[in-house]
Amino acid sequence: MSNDKEFVKEVTPQAVDFSQWYLDVVLKAELMDYAPVKGCMAIRPYGYEIWENIQQLLGGRIKATGHKNAYFPLFIPQSLLQKEADHVEGFAPEVALVTHGGGEELVEKLVVRPTSEAIICSMFAKWIQSWRDLPLLINQWCNVVRWEKNTRPFLRTSEFLWQEGHTVHATEAEAEEETLKMLGVYRDFVENELAIPVVTGRKTEKEKFAGAMRTYSIEALMSDGRALQAGTSHNLGQHFARVFEIQYLDKNDTLQYAWQTSWGASTRLIGALIMVHGDDRGLRMPPRVAPVQVVIVPIIMKKKREEVLAKAREMTERFSDTLRVELDDREGYSPGWKFNEWEMKGVPLRLEIGPRDLENGGVMAVRRDTGEKIFLAEAELEQKLPLLLQEIQQGLFEQALQFRKDNTHHTDNFEQFQEIIATKRGFVLAHWCGEAACEEKIKEKTKATIRCLPLEEVPGGEGPCICCNEGKGKKVYFARAY
Amino acid sequence: MSNDKEFVKEVTPQAVDFSQWYLDVVLKAELMDYAPVKGCMAIRPYGYEIWENIQQLLGGRIKATGHKNAYFPLFIPQSLLQKEADHVEGFAPEVALVTHGGGEELVEKLVVRPTSEAIICSMFAKWIQSWRDLPLLINQWCNVVRWEKNTRPFLRTSEFLWQEGHTVHATEAEAEEETLKMLGVYRDFVENELAIPVVTGRKTEKEKFAGAMRTYSIEALMSDGRALQAGTSHNLGQHFARVFEIQYLDKNDTLQYAWQTSWGASTRLIGALIMVHGDDRGLRMPPRVAPVQVVIVPIIMKKKREEVLAKAREMTERFSDTLRVELDDREGYSPGWKFNEWEMKGVPLRLEIGPRDLENGGVMAVRRDTGEKIFLAEAELEQKLPLLLQEIQQGLFEQALQFRKDNTHHTDNFEQFQEIIATKRGFVLAHWCGEAACEEKIKEKTKATIRCLPLEEVPGGEGPCICCNEGKGKKVYFARAY
Repeated sequence: MSNDKEFVKEVTPQAVDFSQWYLDVVLKAELMDYAPVKGCMAIRPYGYEIWENIQQLLGGRIKATGHKNAYFPLFIPQSLLQKEADHVEGFAPEVALVTHGGGEELVEKLVVRPTSEAIICSMFAKWIQSWRDLPLLINQWCNVVRWEKNTRPFLRTSEFLWQEGHTVHATEAEAEEETLKMLGVYRDFVENELAIPVVTGRKTEKEKFAGAMRTYSIEALMSDGRALQAGTSHNLGQHFARVFEIQYLDKNDTLQYAWQTSWGASTRLIGALIMVHGDDRGLRMPPRVAPVQVVIVPIIMKKKREEVLAKAREMTERFSDTLRVELDDREGYSPGWKFNEWEMKGVPLRLEIGPRDLENGGVMAVRRDTGEKIFLAEAELEQKLPLLLQEIQQGLFEQALQFRKDNTHHTDNFEQFQEIIATKRGFVLAHWCGEAACEEKIKEKTKATIRCLPLEEVPGGEGPCICCNEGKGKKVYFARAY
Repeated sequence: MSNDKEFVKEVTPQAVDFSQWYLDVVLKAELMDYAPVKGCMAIRPYGYEIWENIQQLLGGRIKATGHKNAYFPLFIPQSLLQKEADHVEGFAPEVALVTHGGGEELVEKLVVRPTSEAIICSMFAKWIQSWRDLPLLINQWCNVVRWEKNTRPFLRTSEFLWQEGHTVHATEAEAEEETLKMLGVYRDFVENELAIPVVTGRKTEKEKFAGAMRTYSIEALMSDGRALQAGTSHNLGQHFARVFEIQYLDKNDTLQYAWQTSWGASTRLIGALIMVHGDDRGLRMPPRVAPVQVVIVPIIMKKKREEVLAKAREMTERFSDTLRVELDDREGYSPGWKFNEWEMKGVPLRLEIGPRDLENGGVMAVRRDTGEKIFLAEAELEQKLPLLLQEIQQGLFEQALQFRKDNTHHTDNFEQFQEIIATKRGFVLAHWCGEAACEEKIKEKTKATIRCLPLEEVPGGEGPCICCNEGKGKKVYFARAY
């Protein structure tokens, strides 16, 4: 088994270089590969299966809350994007432009969608006439393009996959309710399926979505102490309704501008999964979204070779309807090599079946999260496997939650603030006066940004601003972020 | 109920103008709407649900045959597309070009994928080294762009959604087996889920995919007598492997070029569904892919208003786990108006519940395909509803099959051939010598193209060519096509 070490050796330890560890792992676990287009990636089957599981579990929640999926054009005429002033200002610098089609120069250039508010609003204006047409609850799963200078697999790529919800309501209150409801859906999904604890809060004016009235986000803490915005929900107010003329006749036959929301989550979530749960041996996948939940590795020696293989196949068959189970009966690879590979891929449970296990009437189960080995008698597998997976899911969440607790700091002193950000990272909860100038100054000095103004009550009440010491305000979450 | 007629009035009868009927129906049934981008459409929720059902049922078959989903970049560097000579010649005239990104002119222009062979082959070359890596069986669900001059919703749009399979094999025989296997998967899916009978066959050299060695297709007959290519499967031979250097070490440690296939089906299938099954009252959806399989319409009068509504709700609840059922309890619309709307949307079964049905202890079921009314006692619903849906599915298929039989003509006389194509349309089976010149001449004179060289045996054996009367050949399918 001399090849065991070589496999792991190719991954830089987190403590040495977290950033390089991340790049090593996404490649070695075959989540993605670099494509011959700047800033774009090929998502390999193992990575894409995670996305499919996300689509199923998040998509199910989106449908269960009354939204219907639809599909809008990839291209947006430039003039349409330019209608909402803040929106174009925010997105214009990072668009890809189609200038030629079918061999001819286009009369009007087309923007490859960086987000679909503009094109969708132009359709909503046609579809909405009366209060009977409201609320209109639409979601789209698609690819979007934002031309990025510095890219990073899954976290920031020029093209990425996402879902974007777009809804229209009769009143401001209903739009705000929807905005917060979908923030709650994201939180529920990310915490319960991805096992990633998040804080929820409102974005500052500076950090809000280009064109929104208010933006909310869920923020997660990566294991290197940097924060990651894992989903956003925007109350668009009437900004788009006014420029796209989305109006409806209310019950009194009066023409009213509608209220809108939009909200999105993307393949970034895969980056979060990697950075929250991964370790020096590779990924650790939460069972609920793991492409493979249980891998069965027969330990094939000369002795009882056929019996071991037969038992491994039988067991794979036995659980193939209830669990995502895979049999690794490849020849030419040592068991140790296989163990390493499946650990790299983060499979939550490995079942080893060798001649001795056969004699003992069971299998050796090995947990990816803790490395713990547990002998399971064959008769108890139906009962124990789902329980173990549930324990692993819970364990990963609790470990991440403990990490966040250990790395959430309170301070009223700017020097200490700077030191924490420079050395420990993590979340820092500090009072902020609400002034953009202070927000900017803190960013310049520390590279930390305000992640959100928390929706949950945080201890500390009101106090003098960590930066200017003059204005007063509540505590907000600061962190250096991806 | 004076509004009943108005609703239907807005649809042009098929006999008057089939093409206009099609456009009326796609809009009135809310399958799509025109978007403010030339040749692109917005797929509305009702249309997109059909696509989701297609994705689930076809996607399930693609996975069951061992393929894994992945995702490759939207953009293809122009130089990559140009590598395979036939491929670039076929696609260059219809590409959309991205020339600017992030405010700067790109050094190399990017093509928005018209199909993904080029970008995927560039990745396959990295991933494949040894015979152990084969076969590689990949599928992608995505959007593609082909700049079209004349567009038509679902049938020919500048952007469309599809799946594209891409596989790599060690031998020519394996690649051919895969090509035909996936053709069979398409046939099975289209016939059993979409209730559309198809003929399968090989494309001529002229009609084959740009870059393929051999192309096979499934061909369906629309109810106006024109043919529609509903799916294609290509044996790419080694054309792409040689230019993209996809090589593997065989078991003797010899470097070999790989053999490849690709195959695709698109949102065109929705166009086929509309044109094969639709009638003057709108769509007729096959139950297996219908977004709504059963619509429940309470007939609300003053009498027993609450009881009727309560029963309708109870019944909706009762079947919501096993069927795609929808309750239409909207106020302000007459039952007749609702009947018309759901007929337009092609819902296979309508259940009417009025005060009299309540007294009689059942509901009135109305079949969309035949208009037949059947009283169903409440106790037998669990048993009868699935049976009725099955009957409708079968009935639609048989009706389409009968139509195809009635509209498949045999002739050995070119004048008669011309007359059939000009007046009756449909499939014409005629002998063809195999010469491209004859194929071209027939197309010029009649606008009919060779749809395929059938894989199934057709009566007629070999005979003199319908065009030149000199060369000999088997019978092939001719038709005017979409």
